[in-house]
Amino acid sequence: MFGSVDDERFERGTARLDELAGAHGERAMDVVREVSPDLARYVVEFGYGDIYSRPTLDDRTRQLAAISALAAMGGAEPQLEYHIGIALNVGVNPGEIVESVVFLAPFVGFARTLNAIRSVRRVFAARGVELATE
Amino acid sequence: MFGSVDDERFERGTARLDELAGAHGERAMDVVREVSPDLARYVVEFGYGDIYSRPTLDDRTRQLAAISALAAMGGAEPQLEYHIGIALNVGVNPGEIVESVVFLAPFVGFARTLNAIRSVRRVFAARGVELATE
Amino acid sequence: MFGSVDDERFERGTARLDELAGAHGERAMDVVREVSPDLARYVVEFGYGDIYSRPTLDDRTRQLAAISALAAMGGAEPQLEYHIGIALNVGVNPGEIVESVVFLAPFVGFARTLNAIRSVRRVFAARGVELATE
Amino acid sequence: MFGSVDDERFERGTARLDELAGAHGERAMDVVREVSPDLARYVVEFGYGDIYSRPTLDDRTRQLAAISALAAMGGAEPQLEYHIGIALNVGVNPGEIVESVVFLAPFVGFARTLNAIRSVRRVFAARGVELATE
Amino acid sequence: MFGSVDDERFERGTARLDELAGAHGERAMDVVREVSPDLARYVVEFGYGDIYSRPTLDDRTRQLAAISALAAMGGAEPQLEYHIGIALNVGVNPGEIVESVVFLAPFVGFARTLNAIRSVRRVFAARGVELATE
Amino acid sequence: MFGSVDDERFERGTARLDELAGAHGERAMDVVREVSPDLARYVVEFGYGDIYSRPTLDDRTRQLAAISALAAMGGAEPQLEYHIGIALNVGVNPGEIVESVVFLAPFVGFARTLNAIRSVRRVFAARGVELATE
Repeated sequence: MFGSVDDERFERGTARLDELAGAHGERAMDVVREVSPDLARYVVEFGYGDIYSRPTLDDRTRQLAAISALAAMGGAEPQLEYHIGIALNVGVNPGEIVESVVFLAPFVGFARTLNAIRSVRRVFAARGVELATE
Repeated sequence: MFGSVDDERFERGTARLDELAGAHGERAMDVVREVSPDLARYVVEFGYGDIYSRPTLDDRTRQLAAISALAAMGGAEPQLEYHIGIALNVGVNPGEIVESVVFLAPFVGFARTLNAIRSVRRVFAARGVELATE
Repeated sequence: MFGSVDDERFERGTARLDELAGAHGERAMDVVREVSPDLARYVVEFGYGDIYSRPTLDDRTRQLAAISALAAMGGAEPQLEYHIGIALNVGVNPGEIVESVVFLAPFVGFARTLNAIRSVRRVFAARGVELATE
Repeated sequence: MFGSVDDERFERGTARLDELAGAHGERAMDVVREVSPDLARYVVEFGYGDIYSRPTLDDRTRQLAAISALAAMGGAEPQLEYHIGIALNVGVNPGEIVESVVFLAPFVGFARTLNAIRSVRRVFAARGVELATE
Repeated sequence: MFGSVDDERFERGTARLDELAGAHGERAMDVVREVSPDLARYVVEFGYGDIYSRPTLDDRTRQLAAISALAAMGGAEPQLEYHIGIALNVGVNPGEIVESVVFLAPFVGFARTLNAIRSVRRVFAARGVELATE
Repeated sequence: MFGSVDDERFERGTARLDELAGAHGERAMDVVREVSPDLARYVVEFGYGDIYSRPTLDDRTRQLAAISALAAMGGAEPQLEYHIGIALNVGVNPGEIVESVVFLAPFVGFARTLNAIRSVRRVFAARGVELATE
């Protein structure tokens, strides 16, 4: 392994990961660690220790932005679903999650948007979230 | 729900959707409706009521264009397969569908093209379409 | 031209477009109209009359989501810059715009993120926005 | 250089390139040749000698498919504009070219569609094509 | 079928395919042949007979480049996994494969990188490759 | 600004950036710093201090991988050109750079490949690199 792990960024990142994604987040990192402990460490240090610890945006706004980016990319369904889960954890209400996906339709088209709605559906089903009628 | 549904575009769109995709199309919209009735309505109104009702291109040309765009995007296999199905419904013959995917190879490369051929294969198998030897 | 223009969605969309993007928005639509009046009309009706008129998300959140999606896509710099402009118009402060782009780095990588920062830089320069030191 | 050039595929490809893109096509290949004569040869042999010489699709359909794929990809404006030019050369009328781009809007979204319309506009201006009112 | 198959490029390509991917490669081509014998032939002729037979780069470098490109694209997991397999076949050691994916993180972001690591994990599991601790 | 700058990763990253990209690299970071000093810092710390300082791959291999990924993405021409420049700096010979782009053609198609060749051409012209005949 290259580089030290016992440092401020890793600890801060681990705390943030736990706060945002709980056991699900640790499991996701464990799966990555099986192949590359260093990659998992970079995700924790840079993703959570640096970026997710910045003060300006609140977690609700961050999650709506993450969902928008991942849905727009396409082909990132595992990450999109993980972040929809975090959105629920930080108190974004289901209607807002759905709304942020619907909002993308004119930007990225119905192909990406409908795939993102499939991801929302899968996460809501797994989490027992009642699909609110609009 | 925001906005009215009983309007000319929704009716025209529903008729077009039924004409192009039959029960399969309605089922696809029902799945979307479970999460967002409004998104399903936009697909029907804008996608089918506006765009698919325009006069200039015939449905065969439209489907070959849709297949090209969705194959080129990558990561839109559900929509690509849905539109390969519509292509068969509107009388595009299987050989033309295969040909339109092969045509993409120099443009988008073999990665996207081979994934699109996998989608063609899945739809043809599900529809009992005989794979014509070229 | 296909379809009617004097309708509720077009008027609502035009009003929203004017409110969000002012003269810049109308000019953008005029350029599109030169090639396809219908496409411009769909943008106004569906983009602004339907989607941007929905009640759940506020314009600040919508713009941060739009910026995230367009930056993640790559190759959509004209639209990204247009929406950074709208973000400034609706009162998103420059620091939040920069922050939403920095936030994307772990998701989409530095290539897309640095290109998005170039777009932010261009819009801020054109608008005389002072680049706040963090 | 690797491989032989005086062969049937190269000659057929050169003839097809000339037929479709005239001097513009040869100039495009000359620019590539400056950096990689082999890459130019592959484009001529595989792109034009193999793919564009296949019998099933007519050139009009091929160009509408090429335009759809390149517009959907985004970031391929040089190739999109080149192929819009070929579309005009093979007799696709300007209204059909515009229509094929408008058709993409629900699939790929307004960001990609509006960028494609910009490309249509640039080619039409360069070619002196009158922008038909719909 | 269009074009002749008994030619130098096809034979050279078939030999290269066999050398790089063995039975797995032939099976992959057989699946494509079921839908389009011509597309399979183009892959063998152009992909393996032309490109993979060029002298300048060694197979190890080629495979690291292929893995980088396919991981960066996203949505090309079948091809990425196939080429990770070829990388193992040509003697790229597992640690280098993992390293080439980790290297991409700052360029393409963690979404694409983590999906690529999932592909590495799947191939290593299928091939019984021990996940080396870094 | 959030987080400390006087640390080991930043110094290591700055040294690596200087070694790989010289004054061009510092200028690139200065442009980013004008908008976001933190983003520039993350690029230096994570991109160069972490990733580019890892021991397993040599810089030549890293640059060929970077070029492959950035060319495959499309729409990342500024970063592709910057990294082609670094490739020249670390001793990748021009023929290998061209070869790595030609190699991509069957994977990503001629659209992305030809755009990447345009980037190679621009960098070689700016650097006075003689275009070797193959």
